[in-house]
Amino acid sequence: MGIKEKVSLASEASKLLGACSREVKDCGLRSIAEGLRANSASILAANERDLRLAREADLAGPMLKRLVFDESKLNGVIAGVESLIALDDPVGKILRGTELDNGLELYQVTCPIGVVGVIFEARPDALVQISTLCLKSGNAAVLKGGSEALHTNRELARVIAEATKGTGVPEGWLQLLETRSDVGEMLKLDGLIDLIVPRGSNAFVKYIMDNTNIAVMGHADGICHVYVDESADEAMAVDVVVDSKCQYVSVCNACETLLVHAGIAKRVLPKLVDALRKRQVRLLGCPVARSIVEMDEATDADWDTEYLDYVLSIKVVSSLDDAIDHINRHGSGHTDVIVTSDEAAAERFMALVDSADVFWNCSSRFADGFRFGLGAEVGISTNKIHARGPVGLEGLVIYKYQLKGQGHVVADYAEGRRQFTHVPIVR
Amino acid sequence: MGIKEKVSLASEASKLLGACSREVKDCGLRSIAEGLRANSASILAANERDLRLAREADLAGPMLKRLVFDESKLNGVIAGVESLIALDDPVGKILRGTELDNGLELYQVTCPIGVVGVIFEARPDALVQISTLCLKSGNAAVLKGGSEALHTNRELARVIAEATKGTGVPEGWLQLLETRSDVGEMLKLDGLIDLIVPRGSNAFVKYIMDNTNIAVMGHADGICHVYVDESADEAMAVDVVVDSKCQYVSVCNACETLLVHAGIAKRVLPKLVDALRKRQVRLLGCPVARSIVEMDEATDADWDTEYLDYVLSIKVVSSLDDAIDHINRHGSGHTDVIVTSDEAAAERFMALVDSADVFWNCSSRFADGFRFGLGAEVGISTNKIHARGPVGLEGLVIYKYQLKGQGHVVADYAEGRRQFTHVPIVR
Repeated sequence: MGIKEKVSLASEASKLLGACSREVKDCGLRSIAEGLRANSASILAANERDLRLAREADLAGPMLKRLVFDESKLNGVIAGVESLIALDDPVGKILRGTELDNGLELYQVTCPIGVVGVIFEARPDALVQISTLCLKSGNAAVLKGGSEALHTNRELARVIAEATKGTGVPEGWLQLLETRSDVGEMLKLDGLIDLIVPRGSNAFVKYIMDNTNIAVMGHADGICHVYVDESADEAMAVDVVVDSKCQYVSVCNACETLLVHAGIAKRVLPKLVDALRKRQVRLLGCPVARSIVEMDEATDADWDTEYLDYVLSIKVVSSLDDAIDHINRHGSGHTDVIVTSDEAAAERFMALVDSADVFWNCSSRFADGFRFGLGAEVGISTNKIHARGPVGLEGLVIYKYQLKGQGHVVADYAEGRRQFTHVPIVR
Repeated sequence: MGIKEKVSLASEASKLLGACSREVKDCGLRSIAEGLRANSASILAANERDLRLAREADLAGPMLKRLVFDESKLNGVIAGVESLIALDDPVGKILRGTELDNGLELYQVTCPIGVVGVIFEARPDALVQISTLCLKSGNAAVLKGGSEALHTNRELARVIAEATKGTGVPEGWLQLLETRSDVGEMLKLDGLIDLIVPRGSNAFVKYIMDNTNIAVMGHADGICHVYVDESADEAMAVDVVVDSKCQYVSVCNACETLLVHAGIAKRVLPKLVDALRKRQVRLLGCPVARSIVEMDEATDADWDTEYLDYVLSIKVVSSLDDAIDHINRHGSGHTDVIVTSDEAAAERFMALVDSADVFWNCSSRFADGFRFGLGAEVGISTNKIHARGPVGLEGLVIYKYQLKGQGHVVADYAEGRRQFTHVPIVR
């Protein structure tokens, strides 16, 4: 089947899925949990095949680890599906009701977005998480996973689609794309796909954003900062900086630049450098930082670089507002942290730093849908519209306005025979 | 000043405007109301100049009418600014709070989008409405109005920007563009502008959407339908269809296609045709419609045409689901109406029709921010993300996540020393 035909099937299904009751969607999710359990042998076998091919291709250790889909990962995703069943239906919620006039009632009601295309890394658990988030929120899903997980993804998608047959969930709601050229085709289908969520490298996300008219939600860079304010608790600053930089270096919410207030730099910088060097972090500093502790020189380009590695750039700033200005200029609007015991400084930082996540006295690594308590996440967004930060179920719905009248016409209001009342409907 | 410099000033201002208190913004709005009143002579004189040039250029009557900015329109926009002052601040609202762990609190807080670019028709009242909506919601505004209103817009923008000086509203928050080539420049500034709202013809909106990487919110076509169901009250059907088609033909929420259920067509179609012909509407029908009442033939292209004129295409459909299918295929996701006395049919229509506004037993012409009680509107959106339908203050804000800790680090959770609590914070 061609890509356009696949996506057309998803689009047809999405029109019906939007009107499916919570019962139907949850029945589909229960059937998926059972199907995954019943088909564990074929799923694990498919993953073995992917792992064998990956080892033959000398895939790097961390990638291999993400590719593994064993009994324990299977149980994890099944538990995830079961926790989704327990959540409220995000669709059909009345956000606001207004009586426009006697017998003329306006309701703003949540509904699915429609067809969501998600491109994600070679991590088979993501396929289960994303497809079931889409189903719970009433969206058809067009998914493309990392090619190293081809056989696992194919088997998971087959099992999930089969499981929902006969549950009332419209067939065709889940479509799997398998190649890069499939993705290229998908980007052209702006009449059929309503939102694309690309996960992956900067270059990849930018490529997607530049090559489609479909709305794209995601993040390219993750240039996150920790700013150690003049009044920071020094031990806390060391803990937060080390965790933000080192807890997992290759992810988007890891710290890439450390900013230190000049008034505290002489005291705290040696301690920070010491702790970071114990964790093998290579440090690149501005001239002031280098005058306090010996380290390599940071160039202008370093302030705009996402290392995703054991490397950190360090700049001494002369004020809170200098730190804010640096972050708004060089950051990527992802996650930025202030360490301070001055509440007014923290509030100013959190108000003026224009990022999805603004944190006070805690690690940048908390920026994550699971840690935020959203359930699974479909991605992290640095967009300025629709959804920002970790995106869960809520980011997969929009609303429509329903207006219920009794033959009301606008001419009566335009010609002064009737007046609007605009009274909130409280339920 | 170049366009990039102007927009840079707006961007700088927007960083500060996001942290302005309600008091500061409302003080700015009060000062704008006073400034408009104090400068009425120069504003009305500028409008006289635009009107004289427009008459010399033989501008059409309806356009001239929209261009007029007299004492009465000035009083209208001043009243609008005063009603904005009375509204709650849309910024700084806590949408959700979650305790992630003891002393680690997450808040989802509304904030402005940043810099909003709006391109609108030659209607000077729109400049006042849009700029003050942006200010109330904490956004910097880059505005381009219809060129016929050049002198009025220039004077209004000058008065508004002057009025906010010294009120605490950061200078540069309002920038006026004056030419089409200015708009072309603006479309390239995706690092500085966060959202573009284009209002105008289909072709113009499509041009904007195809020529920028900035998020665009708006609508191109407005192909709205009224569907007269089998169980419709016939007199109500006539009223709703006539108002939807004729109350104001040249706007996006006017009806362009009438769908009639086959079971009622023989009875109701002659009455509908009679009423529409009294209003000089030219009718184009499908073969079944033409077998009931004589009328011109509708071609396939008619189902996808926005006439914006006294023309209506008519199709007889064999079922509710046929009507829904026709609308989802040929509509533009703007506003669609069902006339029926069958509640189940109405609910199915409102659930399955994938449009921003789905109406039951009332005119499509109600799709409007003022009629909806939103205050003024910045535009009407047929996007599937962020904001849909008439967009007021709420559509001009997004949120950020604020996380407040006491030195919390992720390693403690990753290594099992601490557990998340994820308890909602109820206030």
